[in-house]
Amino acid sequence: MANGSVMAFNGLEWKVHVADGSSETKVVEPGVARRLYIQLQGQIWRCLMKIGRFFEKARDIAASEPTKAIHGVKVGMALSLVSLFYYMRPLYDGVGGNAMWAVMTVVVAFEYSVGATIAKSFNRISATFLAGSLGIGVHWIANQCGELEPVILQASVAILGAAATFSRFIPYVKARFDYGAMIFILTFCFVSVSGYRVDKVLELARNRVSTIAIGTSICILTSMLFYPVWAGNELHKLIYKNLEKLADSLNGCVTEYFKDNEERSGLKQEGYKSVLNSKASEEAMANLARWEPAHGRFKFRHPWKQYLKVGASMRSCAYCIETLNGFISSEVQAPELLKKHLKEVCMTLTSSSSNVLKELAMSMKTMTKSTKTKFLVQEMNFAVQSFQNVLKDLSKQVLVLPEHEMDEGKLKTQIVPIMAIVPLATLASLLIEIAERIEGIVGVVDEVAAQAEFEVVKYKKNKEKKTFEV
Amino acid sequence: MANGSVMAFNGLEWKVHVADGSSETKVVEPGVARRLYIQLQGQIWRCLMKIGRFFEKARDIAASEPTKAIHGVKVGMALSLVSLFYYMRPLYDGVGGNAMWAVMTVVVAFEYSVGATIAKSFNRISATFLAGSLGIGVHWIANQCGELEPVILQASVAILGAAATFSRFIPYVKARFDYGAMIFILTFCFVSVSGYRVDKVLELARNRVSTIAIGTSICILTSMLFYPVWAGNELHKLIYKNLEKLADSLNGCVTEYFKDNEERSGLKQEGYKSVLNSKASEEAMANLARWEPAHGRFKFRHPWKQYLKVGASMRSCAYCIETLNGFISSEVQAPELLKKHLKEVCMTLTSSSSNVLKELAMSMKTMTKSTKTKFLVQEMNFAVQSFQNVLKDLSKQVLVLPEHEMDEGKLKTQIVPIMAIVPLATLASLLIEIAERIEGIVGVVDEVAAQAEFEVVKYKKNKEKKTFEV
Repeated sequence: MANGSVMAFNGLEWKVHVADGSSETKVVEPGVARRLYIQLQGQIWRCLMKIGRFFEKARDIAASEPTKAIHGVKVGMALSLVSLFYYMRPLYDGVGGNAMWAVMTVVVAFEYSVGATIAKSFNRISATFLAGSLGIGVHWIANQCGELEPVILQASVAILGAAATFSRFIPYVKARFDYGAMIFILTFCFVSVSGYRVDKVLELARNRVSTIAIGTSICILTSMLFYPVWAGNELHKLIYKNLEKLADSLNGCVTEYFKDNEERSGLKQEGYKSVLNSKASEEAMANLARWEPAHGRFKFRHPWKQYLKVGASMRSCAYCIETLNGFISSEVQAPELLKKHLKEVCMTLTSSSSNVLKELAMSMKTMTKSTKTKFLVQEMNFAVQSFQNVLKDLSKQVLVLPEHEMDEGKLKTQIVPIMAIVPLATLASLLIEIAERIEGIVGVVDEVAAQAEFEVVKYKKNKEKKTFEV
Repeated sequence: MANGSVMAFNGLEWKVHVADGSSETKVVEPGVARRLYIQLQGQIWRCLMKIGRFFEKARDIAASEPTKAIHGVKVGMALSLVSLFYYMRPLYDGVGGNAMWAVMTVVVAFEYSVGATIAKSFNRISATFLAGSLGIGVHWIANQCGELEPVILQASVAILGAAATFSRFIPYVKARFDYGAMIFILTFCFVSVSGYRVDKVLELARNRVSTIAIGTSICILTSMLFYPVWAGNELHKLIYKNLEKLADSLNGCVTEYFKDNEERSGLKQEGYKSVLNSKASEEAMANLARWEPAHGRFKFRHPWKQYLKVGASMRSCAYCIETLNGFISSEVQAPELLKKHLKEVCMTLTSSSSNVLKELAMSMKTMTKSTKTKFLVQEMNFAVQSFQNVLKDLSKQVLVLPEHEMDEGKLKTQIVPIMAIVPLATLASLLIEIAERIEGIVGVVDEVAAQAEFEVVKYKKNKEKKTFEV
């Protein structure tokens, strides 16, 4: 027991010499204070572990996406730039005590992508201006009414606040002017409420607008000039990477199915999942990209909305691949004989489908109208046709017969119960459906190419031959 | 031509009497000013139309989701409540000129759901407190360094700003403390930068915290006491409504397939789409629900995270239904003969599957452990079994034979080419896969029921009989 308590509580062991000469071991249970201390130690240890893991996570993010770490540095730069206004007396005297508003603008309006920064800056300036003028107007009207002044001010704050808040639920406003609506309420309250005490409303408003202008221009310049992250560019990258992922996971999925049980690896098949879940980020980026000026290969009016359609048609294809993946990893398997029989034609269809996807990804990536796409789609449709033909031929080779009719010298034909065909028939229909949906993606990408005026790349004759070998 | 220009430009027509007595018609093109005026008129008209449509949209939203309109009213209320601090002299003297910060807090922290309001309020208070103390500390250190003061302040602003901005990319921080990180930067900048001028930093900080506390308590009280919108409740509603939608669209989808061409309506099949797209909102709501106190039937530690698993398993089922829907509306149709043969067994499987979903929805809705679920799942599995048996039996009735072997007195058996079986085989596997995935949902809902301690409802014997008739 002594030993046990030593282990459990770090208790003290005393040897007591009793009068008869024998000695007795006494164990003293550790005091409450000591126990608390040990518990606290454990807590602190766990806490430190947590913090350690937190920093590991942070390091991983910084390593895998350095632009995010750079964004942090950019914000730090912009902040020290704007706080110069506070430290340098001539600049400080220029904008008065309102320099704080410039700092605040930088903190609030500096976003990860250029589009988001511009959108927030625009929202902030225009909403401040609008609400400021409206506030001064209401303030003037209230002033004329004498006694009723506080009532009018209060009522206007409540009504406009309610209306602007509600407007944020309207999709059009939410997508473009959500932040603006908030700033509108804020500024209106400031002007109309503070106007009750401060008489120099106009000067205050002028100062506020100029400091906000300083803050927003620092934001926009910093975000555009140092390692800019363009929402449009990110969206573009997301779309073509998702196309590549679809191609890879379709290919990986079917290859896995036709592998022997031992060879299976479980790799490459999860790519389509990022397609399934990218709707929200695509929409957000397309919204922000519209605020961005021309950059890189993108013109000012690049058809970002069209990208959403590409995303939607990719998702519709990804749903099918998800179902396909479910089947392939399910327990019900087709008999090896049939699998072998259909392997080649399945693989041909799959690889021609995923070639189309890869070509689309390439066309998006390089922003060129690919002349190959048409051929690849034809090839895919041809593969669908020949797949269907093989299925038809199957009925000549494989007789689906109930077992008791296995007589009359039909031993040459192989006999497979109808149930065995079900998994392969499903695989077939899914692959054909996927090919159909890929054609849908081709259509939408073509629209993007037309609207964004992708260049046409012409292949020489000998090059065209090569493309078919891909 | 005169007529044309009258129509086009509203031009003027003059009759000029020439010396020889004849008269000539002269058309004067309208001036630039007039043309601009007409164009402007058109623009204004289009603008008015747009505004009209905007208000229509707003009215529709208010009518369909009155809680959103009520939220607007609540914000208006809170704003006029907080601006009272400004108008009433005793209150104003209490918090000094910082009353503006209370107004600002209400504008910024008042969110649609109680959870979001509490999260923002908590973030705002704790970040202000943390950054305020840190800022005062840095300010004190900088003061000790004499000459170096501005350098230290500037560097601390840049470094902490960069670190806090980067921390917003870490998922854990993003989900819980995104707003807090921003407020941290803001407050730190305010305190350390303004400290350079204002000596009464401590008093300022005290005032700021107390006004923010006033603002947040007004926010939280208003959002909790008047028509509260609980994020948890919304999530709960979303989940069971989505379960109902899945059931309806599965049923509608298959019923539609077995209808004759003329009877088809195209109704009820799109419900699953809202399941496909609800991941982002589910996650957001689960994050916010954790901030909420016990409300209605939900305890403080309700397993909101588990709801996300229900959502995920529902989505996995919805992917299959999406694929199924694609097949059913595709052009490749099974022959009527086979369709009729399989109609009953398909419909049985479908209705038993959707009964399970409906029962799960009911169990979630009423927050009771349903004893029926087990029977319904058994019924569903039984339907799967009998479906598979029918498919096996099919091989006894339907011989899949190539046509040239149609001899030897087998005229009694019906002959169908293998290709004709493919669509029905696909339908079968999809329905069976859907049934499997529904079992997955049952498992996750059971976990929720266990963790949230749903009540068990016991049916009397005669009632239990009834349940099977549903």
